[in-house]
Amino acid sequence: MISKFIIAIYVDNESGVLSRVTAMFTRRGFNIDTLTVGETESPLYSRITISLTAEDADKDQVVSQLGKLYNVKKVVVLSNEDCIKRELLLIKVGNNDEIRPGIIETCNIFRSKIIDFSEDAISIEVTGDSQKIDAFIDNIKKFGIIEMCRTGIVALDRGSANIWSEHTDQA
Amino acid sequence: MISKFIIAIYVDNESGVLSRVTAMFTRRGFNIDTLTVGETESPLYSRITISLTAEDADKDQVVSQLGKLYNVKKVVVLSNEDCIKRELLLIKVGNNDEIRPGIIETCNIFRSKIIDFSEDAISIEVTGDSQKIDAFIDNIKKFGIIEMCRTGIVALDRGSANIWSEHTDQA
Repeated sequence: MISKFIIAIYVDNESGVLSRVTAMFTRRGFNIDTLTVGETESPLYSRITISLTAEDADKDQVVSQLGKLYNVKKVVVLSNEDCIKRELLLIKVGNNDEIRPGIIETCNIFRSKIIDFSEDAISIEVTGDSQKIDAFIDNIKKFGIIEMCRTGIVALDRGSANIWSEHTDQA
Repeated sequence: MISKFIIAIYVDNESGVLSRVTAMFTRRGFNIDTLTVGETESPLYSRITISLTAEDADKDQVVSQLGKLYNVKKVVVLSNEDCIKRELLLIKVGNNDEIRPGIIETCNIFRSKIIDFSEDAISIEVTGDSQKIDAFIDNIKKFGIIEMCRTGIVALDRGSANIWSEHTDQA
């Protein structure tokens, strides 16, 4: 069965790790949906979050291959039910007297934030799970998207568990 | 002079592109601070945003090398003054009667959002520029960080310009 899943990876904060991780996906022919890499609570480590659409059987292989890579400290598959997922979208649409009321209404409905405003363009910041971001784009696109930029997914376990806790799929 | 800068890259939405981009950085010895890759207004393309600390002279080299890569459509350096930058942080701290009021107060000051609450942990979502995110972490860390996950930076030009407009540094 094909499904979407999220992999959290703890790695040494060193040049070359990200390249080894992405190369493994290319070599195995897995296409990454989104990828983010950022700082963690320790300056020694970075955290990579990858979202992926793949066969369930491939999931185990990805986790096992990632766990073997140099500088990779921990690999965990976050279960869709037990984790909090968020994405950030920056999107720029047109601006004129005719479309402005509709844009502002859409922003209010989605509790999104106008962060730049000029005579001919409005830039908006939206935070939420991927479904909310998709719905926002669907509603705003009729006003003319000039440009957009999505961060990709970041995710944490619910409750007090963290990446070092016991997980079903891990390496 | 060493400085921080942001590169926006438009690429074909195909397996292997991300790997070629990160490999170029490794080969040249540049350490990526943050990287995000996500969908764009077209299903054919992805947008990669990389933040980097490097010599000004290296910046030109990075842009030129990226521009030569297969499947890379456009490379632009976003100037710090003329762009909007945002990051998203998910962070989990402890929870008990003693620290809870302080945590909630910090969340209110930073207009951040509690998105998960259990007996022994509180998860918080914070959006803003990197300085705001850093300041939030500085203020919340005394309550005990269990785990955190940052998306890395996404950025758009101010006004109506987009990645296809004329930029000082581009390829």
